[in-house]
Amino acid sequence: MELDLQPSERLDDLLTHQLRIIQSREVFSFSMDAVLLARFAGVPKRGRIVDLCTGNGVVPLLLSTRSEAGIDAVEIQPRLADMARRSVALNGLEGRIRIMEGDLRLLAKQLGYGSYDAVTVNPPYLPPASGDRNENPHVAAARHEMNGTLEEIVEQCARLLRTGGRLSMVHRPGRLIEIVSAMSRHNLEPKRIRFVHPYVGAEANMVLIEAVRGGRPSVRLLPPLIVYQEDGQYSDEIMDIYFHQGRGKPDAAAEELRTDG
Amino acid sequence: MELDLQPSERLDDLLTHQLRIIQSREVFSFSMDAVLLARFAGVPKRGRIVDLCTGNGVVPLLLSTRSEAGIDAVEIQPRLADMARRSVALNGLEGRIRIMEGDLRLLAKQLGYGSYDAVTVNPPYLPPASGDRNENPHVAAARHEMNGTLEEIVEQCARLLRTGGRLSMVHRPGRLIEIVSAMSRHNLEPKRIRFVHPYVGAEANMVLIEAVRGGRPSVRLLPPLIVYQEDGQYSDEIMDIYFHQGRGKPDAAAEELRTDG
Repeated sequence: MELDLQPSERLDDLLTHQLRIIQSREVFSFSMDAVLLARFAGVPKRGRIVDLCTGNGVVPLLLSTRSEAGIDAVEIQPRLADMARRSVALNGLEGRIRIMEGDLRLLAKQLGYGSYDAVTVNPPYLPPASGDRNENPHVAAARHEMNGTLEEIVEQCARLLRTGGRLSMVHRPGRLIEIVSAMSRHNLEPKRIRFVHPYVGAEANMVLIEAVRGGRPSVRLLPPLIVYQEDGQYSDEIMDIYFHQGRGKPDAAAEELRTDG
Repeated sequence: MELDLQPSERLDDLLTHQLRIIQSREVFSFSMDAVLLARFAGVPKRGRIVDLCTGNGVVPLLLSTRSEAGIDAVEIQPRLADMARRSVALNGLEGRIRIMEGDLRLLAKQLGYGSYDAVTVNPPYLPPASGDRNENPHVAAARHEMNGTLEEIVEQCARLLRTGGRLSMVHRPGRLIEIVSAMSRHNLEPKRIRFVHPYVGAEANMVLIEAVRGGRPSVRLLPPLIVYQEDGQYSDEIMDIYFHQGRGKPDAAAEELRTDG
């Protein structure tokens, strides 16, 4: 199909399943966090999935390789939603992925309470009031909770999910306590947690959490996900996630999904 | 001094600082959990420390190598408190460590609200009602919450601590959410969490948590503590903890204590 890139935009390869994605350094480029979330998330083979704070749509694009579910994806910024929509078309996935613009604080009312089997979200990591806010409004909105606090995001996720449905989130470890507290308040029980460490001897700089709506208490702490080997190269697991996203080979992550209660 | 061992008791070497400890397979032997807790805990150079659920006193014995604080230690089972008291005397530490018998649900009332700088606790890991309860009453009481629930333990820890004082706990990862929820309810803010994995590719089977009474939210997720190398030998860090407990060499754990806010 004909490619309609705007100034500043470029076309990147998603490294798997011949997927491509429109990015822009000035507006939005995805990071490793989104790729790890798309692999970690517990998703149904069929049914309905919704991705919040979707940005340029990287998570729904990658999820489409792991599930045949219908995927909705919501972005509040029209410029990013437009990028995501064009990327979906570019990959011929209009029948599988629907990109919507919307304010996530009103989502459950609009999309239906309890109408999803799985929700994924890579929210802004910083509270609205925190310092060094990026001057670029697109980047600022992706980093800071300007359009919904962590509490509001978790609340909407809970409302969108059916009982037994799964919320998967990637966030900063420093906010772990806030996240699990908010989940508890909204009847989401954390069931799998995985910390991501740049090196085996370093503190975690990312956390992946999966919670089940109405699940029973008891959480599994998965093996640490180490990004770099000692020699500075990506670890085997990171390479596997980037290049085999969704191939469904029986690796640790996939195993976890099948056995998790 | 003359050694007064009861039938079934033996004298073990604590591998560091020439400390020795009375153990009994029939009554109580400490496990790695206690050794890791004694190294992980944030303790003041001077002041007052209390160790709850002290068993045969392994944690206060090890803490005495890291701090000049006065250490109280509480055990509800008279048989274990007696073992602990004899181990303290055996090491000539009567002036530093005081072993008390008591029910931890009444502790703050007896020992004084806000009267400690640090609390350590290696509580029973299993809820009172959980299955396969050990027939041996000593072992059952060490494993099951027969003498205080997790919530009651956390509540007493909070009451014993001054504002800014630190609670350090070792527990099973599966109960992480319960633990941090209970801490939140009692104004204890988790500040450092470290997961212990048997191997680098295995799920965590232990968690170390330090919380500060009245601390501000923000938690650090420390590097994973790996127990065994790939060849089945203890990792260098485990060997270091066992043999250099309290030497104060500038390893990762010690560094964390100095820089933690």
